Amino acid sequence: MGDSLNLVLFSGTDDKLQAAAVLIAGAAAVGRRVHVFLQYWALAAFQADALDADHGLSGESGEAGRRLVAEAAAAGQPRWHERLRQAKALGEVDIRACSLSMDVLKLQESDLSDLVDGVEGVASFYLDAGDGPIVFI
Amino acid sequence: MGDSLNLVLFSGTDDKLQAAAVLIAGAAAVGRRVHVFLQYWALAAFQADALDADHGLSGESGEAGRRLVAEAAAAGQPRWHERLRQAKALGEVDIRACSLSMDVLKLQESDLSDLVDGVEGVASFYLDAGDGPIVFI
Amino acid sequence: MGDSLNLVLFSGTDDKLQAAAVLIAGAAAVGRRVHVFLQYWALAAFQADALDADHGLSGESGEAGRRLVAEAAAAGQPRWHERLRQAKALGEVDIRACSLSMDVLKLQESDLSDLVDGVEGVASFYLDAGDGPIVFI
Repeated sequence: MGDSLNLVLFSGTDDKLQAAAVLIAGAAAVGRRVHVFLQYWALAAFQADALDADHGLSGESGEAGRRLVAEAAAAGQPRWHERLRQAKALGEVDIRACSLSMDVLKLQESDLSDLVDGVEGVASFYLDAGDGPIVFI
Repeated sequence: MGDSLNLVLFSGTDDKLQAAAVLIAGAAAVGRRVHVFLQYWALAAFQADALDADHGLSGESGEAGRRLVAEAAAAGQPRWHERLRQAKALGEVDIRACSLSMDVLKLQESDLSDLVDGVEGVASFYLDAGDGPIVFI
Repeated sequence: MGDSLNLVLFSGTDDKLQAAAVLIAGAAAVGRRVHVFLQYWALAAFQADALDADHGLSGESGEAGRRLVAEAAAAGQPRWHERLRQAKALGEVDIRACSLSMDVLKLQESDLSDLVDGVEGVASFYLDAGDGPIVFI
């Protein structure tokens, strides 16, 4: 089933958060342990009061793309944070905030959603990652 | 020569598609098997009637960057989809559309370029990826 | 401590360069060898006269994000290229410019910062990467 999956999540637009949630949920479903490290705009999206906000889409989405994504959401596609919650219930998904990004964004751990399991430094991220793949989104 | 290379292609701008095509062709040239999984805007770019469209550049390219990329194209640099076709002729390059993204974009398999070898779910992507690196573009 | 870390650096905005520098410095600090391959807008940012330029932020940063990043810089957070220089002094960090991107951007090796150790092709990148993770930023 492969190694654990290590994911540095930097981007905080709804399309990239959805793509990340699909990759995380899929990894959990096939029995891979997932370790997520939140930086910058992804970390901002994981604030407790920000999960349901409109985080926009990648600049390249265009008007037609925006409409299709909105229609998929209206048709009942799970939101990215709902998909992550399901993945955490199903498998081993550990989500950590990057301590340096916490400083840049002036956040406290109490500002974050309960989807986040704690704060860690980049050295800790690598020590856990071992030989596994590292994906940056 | 290393493991197979697994590439989740999300972005559909011409500069990222070109960077992805260079990485895929290079991997094929050194004998690595390549497995590409198309999501969102990259999948949109692989529609049969979209290959030659202008997909724009990353927002950060700037005016000078846009001019240099246009000059490289005019000077005969292969387009990203030409480079991919060469890579498929040269090595083992398997390109699959993400089934969830097909639903979001309301696409049928018959809408896609013949560069795409089929549609698969994320679980199938991981089962094939095994311990190999996973790159998100 | 895991394999070497192979990083394809494509993006040249200050937030992604900073995220990359944090990941590179962290890898060097835990004893991982780091191999960086510069493409497109990241390569443009490594020109000798461009290191200190304002490279902007990802389109998604928003006004509040821009202000927080500026405040972190004013509060003494090391700039991305300073962090990279520290990482090169501390560990084994090899930075190479992609030869194809050099052609697109019409650059000579003498245009590049001394942080860059040379120019290489994509085949050379893979031969060095072996089985290690490959991260695209």
